[in-house]
Amino acid sequence: MEKLKNRSEIGIYALGGLGEVGANMYVVDYLEQLFVIDCGVLFPDEHLLGVDYVIPDFSYLKKNEHKIVGLFITHGHEDHIGGIPFLLKQVKIPCIYAAGVTVDLIQNKLQDYPELLSVTKFKEFNNSSTYKFKDVEVSFIRLNHSIPDMFGIVFDTPLGKIFHTGDFKFDLTPVGPPAEYDKLAKLGQDGCLCMLADSTNALRDGFTLSERKIGYTIHELFSEIKDRIIVATFASNMFRVQQVIEACIEHGRHIAIFGRSMEKTIEVGQQVGYIKAPKGTIIDSSEIDKYKPNEVCLLCTGSQGEPMAALSRIANGSHRTIKLIPSDTIIFSSNPIPGNQEGVNRTINMLFKKGANVITNSSINDTHTTGHASQGELKLMLTLVKPKYFMPIHGEYRMQRVHGDLAVQTGVDPKNVFVLENGDVLAINERSARIAGHVPASEVYVDGSGIGDISGNIIKERKMLADDGMFSLIITIDSKKKTIPIDPQVVSRGFIFMKDSEELTKFFVDKAKEYLVNELNASKQANLLQLKKGLTEELSDIIYKKTDRKPMVIPVFMDIASK
Amino acid sequence: MEKLKNRSEIGIYALGGLGEVGANMYVVDYLEQLFVIDCGVLFPDEHLLGVDYVIPDFSYLKKNEHKIVGLFITHGHEDHIGGIPFLLKQVKIPCIYAAGVTVDLIQNKLQDYPELLSVTKFKEFNNSSTYKFKDVEVSFIRLNHSIPDMFGIVFDTPLGKIFHTGDFKFDLTPVGPPAEYDKLAKLGQDGCLCMLADSTNALRDGFTLSERKIGYTIHELFSEIKDRIIVATFASNMFRVQQVIEACIEHGRHIAIFGRSMEKTIEVGQQVGYIKAPKGTIIDSSEIDKYKPNEVCLLCTGSQGEPMAALSRIANGSHRTIKLIPSDTIIFSSNPIPGNQEGVNRTINMLFKKGANVITNSSINDTHTTGHASQGELKLMLTLVKPKYFMPIHGEYRMQRVHGDLAVQTGVDPKNVFVLENGDVLAINERSARIAGHVPASEVYVDGSGIGDISGNIIKERKMLADDGMFSLIITIDSKKKTIPIDPQVVSRGFIFMKDSEELTKFFVDKAKEYLVNELNASKQANLLQLKKGLTEELSDIIYKKTDRKPMVIPVFMDIASK
Repeated sequence: MEKLKNRSEIGIYALGGLGEVGANMYVVDYLEQLFVIDCGVLFPDEHLLGVDYVIPDFSYLKKNEHKIVGLFITHGHEDHIGGIPFLLKQVKIPCIYAAGVTVDLIQNKLQDYPELLSVTKFKEFNNSSTYKFKDVEVSFIRLNHSIPDMFGIVFDTPLGKIFHTGDFKFDLTPVGPPAEYDKLAKLGQDGCLCMLADSTNALRDGFTLSERKIGYTIHELFSEIKDRIIVATFASNMFRVQQVIEACIEHGRHIAIFGRSMEKTIEVGQQVGYIKAPKGTIIDSSEIDKYKPNEVCLLCTGSQGEPMAALSRIANGSHRTIKLIPSDTIIFSSNPIPGNQEGVNRTINMLFKKGANVITNSSINDTHTTGHASQGELKLMLTLVKPKYFMPIHGEYRMQRVHGDLAVQTGVDPKNVFVLENGDVLAINERSARIAGHVPASEVYVDGSGIGDISGNIIKERKMLADDGMFSLIITIDSKKKTIPIDPQVVSRGFIFMKDSEELTKFFVDKAKEYLVNELNASKQANLLQLKKGLTEELSDIIYKKTDRKPMVIPVFMDIASK
Repeated sequence: MEKLKNRSEIGIYALGGLGEVGANMYVVDYLEQLFVIDCGVLFPDEHLLGVDYVIPDFSYLKKNEHKIVGLFITHGHEDHIGGIPFLLKQVKIPCIYAAGVTVDLIQNKLQDYPELLSVTKFKEFNNSSTYKFKDVEVSFIRLNHSIPDMFGIVFDTPLGKIFHTGDFKFDLTPVGPPAEYDKLAKLGQDGCLCMLADSTNALRDGFTLSERKIGYTIHELFSEIKDRIIVATFASNMFRVQQVIEACIEHGRHIAIFGRSMEKTIEVGQQVGYIKAPKGTIIDSSEIDKYKPNEVCLLCTGSQGEPMAALSRIANGSHRTIKLIPSDTIIFSSNPIPGNQEGVNRTINMLFKKGANVITNSSINDTHTTGHASQGELKLMLTLVKPKYFMPIHGEYRMQRVHGDLAVQTGVDPKNVFVLENGDVLAINERSARIAGHVPASEVYVDGSGIGDISGNIIKERKMLADDGMFSLIITIDSKKKTIPIDPQVVSRGFIFMKDSEELTKFFVDKAKEYLVNELNASKQANLLQLKKGLTEELSDIIYKKTDRKPMVIPVFMDIASK
């Protein structure tokens, strides 16, 4: 990036979160101070074969480690905190600022890394906290989301206020505390130099349904259902969990918890007070059989069809303790996240086949609502805060772009709207803004214990192997005598079933030998490298013509000439 | 299957199409006559790595070839006709019965198989055709769908009438001819013994939007847009294509066609009269530059984000002739089919990034409607036809199940609703129905030119290769001397990038050698098979502990003992 004009320019950039939903990480850069916001993972789509997570590229932060004043966390979802252990391993972070339940969730995560937990400093903020740095004051505005303690962050600088919304919606009948509209209005009155805002639902018309409405639906369903109820929802949504617990209390059901992340939610939620249940409401999962079906409710993970989660195991009959009863009703208090649709459908089909009834979120039964603002709320936010510059964040390009249009509709000057990509540096002063170059912001793949050692090339190889498998020939060659003394060995995986294809395999081996003998006879001296390249092409061609498939062809030469 | 009671029982079964959307193939079996209905492909989800199509298992038909009286086709979509070439290669079919444009589409498909085309007999039916077989009369009822010439089929037998709806919706303002409500009502009055009906949209409340409404939206958009328009839609939907052409005529635009399947649609559609355009309306794609942007419209394939289709090439800048202009507006007159969502989003993001405007189907702009009946129409069909027995077909289990509930709501006896799986034989007589066993109905995978040679095992191998690649060691061994005379060769693909991981690779090789030497020393005689099994386990373990990854480990032994 270009050098920011000292004192007169603020730099704002994303290391992740633009053009994608996930891997959120943003930086406010002023007076040689880096304020880092969030550090999330992105769950890869099916094209990134075998990749567990995508995380931001921390190399710019590593290089500028000495400037980092702190990591400020908006809320405790994985796409905002999941990358923290990877960051802490690589970059020295003086302090993590987080609120309420977010602190617990991060510390829980770090329990797998005791060496990090012991050296990491935390400051727990609340809605009245302020932190002073050189010429910058940081404060927080409580907003609504699908997890408690989600805060927008205000960076008050001599040039003006920078406001990062975090992930938000406006819920006028929230289950937790309301959003701080007064602070947003005051921010708008005082003047907001630049706002960065959540674009996830920018393509969605109207206003997002209130969490309270979901509670009503759950109550209604509970009063209609006369047998056992199984509810699946997102483990992190403590508001939803609390509403299910309340429905259980009202309708005389005990609730048993299934799935480790759900157990964790209940534990943390009860500690911080977001989850409240009178003694005896929550029962141990082993006690279910002591009660009649209409006296219990099972709350479990697996609303996304994750194959190892509690609900999926119950559906496919592999759960340790729970057997499905045909009179069971399963309520999906969730929507499938893009990419999970087919897995969720598989689970629903299995449940139906076992005779159970399944209720999903639909126009008839509102069993779920999103945590992100729809167009109505996005325009309300823009209208309240009235930012001079606007940077839509947290979303694919099409969402950012439409969010930018909404900003213009509410009065932001079109040339002050910046629909950027990861790494683009927005440099703002009191009068103007410019793109001041770029910082490195490529995607980093995490696969197993390897971070960043998987590249596009490895993914390409996996893609080839995935489509048509591999066909390898191990060829014993005498490069001096220029002969193939014994028949090549074949190793084939994911290509054809070898036992059923002996004839075909023999055909390929014969063709390979024929090619090699011809090449050896034609050349003065055997060049194994060239021979390998030639055979790969020749054999790939022959295989494609014969089978219409393109397995990865791998010849291996064992040269016995030296003997 | 059990033997049907001659004269007194009709057998009905699916070879594909139950529990899935695709690979439709149903059989009505009476008096040793097999009436085969449709023969479709299913496009595999991402779990069937590398598989091109899934087709029904034709083995039962092959075995009972002599009983087949004909193949009756409801309409020309791929999930109803795509399997025909594979069927004709394996099974003798006396005659294919199809209507209007369906005949053209099948014959087009068979042009790639001249040896099949020349021997296949066709009978083209229309809404007044009847065909008489031994004690069975076959007739047809025109219904609405997203392709012209979709017909439900009636099999009139001495035991009663069997009605197969095909894929349908009721469109009260259709673009083509209306559905034949009078025939449905008469069928209901006369008595329908059993109905098989389309369940695709059984989970959707209300009534499906009329095709006409989409025409209105397209007209409105055309009157608003002042620059170049690009429309992407399903090539097979001739009604939609005709409406786009009409909008072009009305708004003074010439239309150019991109994509081979779209060109084919226009050709066939003009032949049969479903597509009508005054001379000069359709222009050659090379002529676009002769006109101003507001005088042309590009109609193209790629509405599903297919990487090779016209729109995707235009979006990523690789199209031969068309360059995107920032003032372009792209209208997606389509919805993403489940599984294609991410590909479509990628295309939209690319178009937006190039500065173009993109309009998709939404609550604001109805640019697409489905061809399948929603709950309202399904209930109307059930109410008109009043079948005694009901078999929901064409859909996942959850759709069939809910469709079964709708039947009960409209008065079908719950015990007369049969939510079945592929292969289940429903045997019906005038007074009762039973499940009379099963016919073989497994999925058959087509990969390249191979039909059915890819099994679950090959897919499992591809899955392993896709996730973590492979790590192969070629080990030269002297089984008599029990030594490893030279260092093993390593072949690794999709696992780690070998140039960056020399140390790691050496570690694995050393561990493998250590294991082998120990085993060889401990055993009296080298058992290569056991050694291979042991090394695979040992090395897999070591690799997993070191990398948290599970590549396919493949040791290959080259025994030089014989020398």
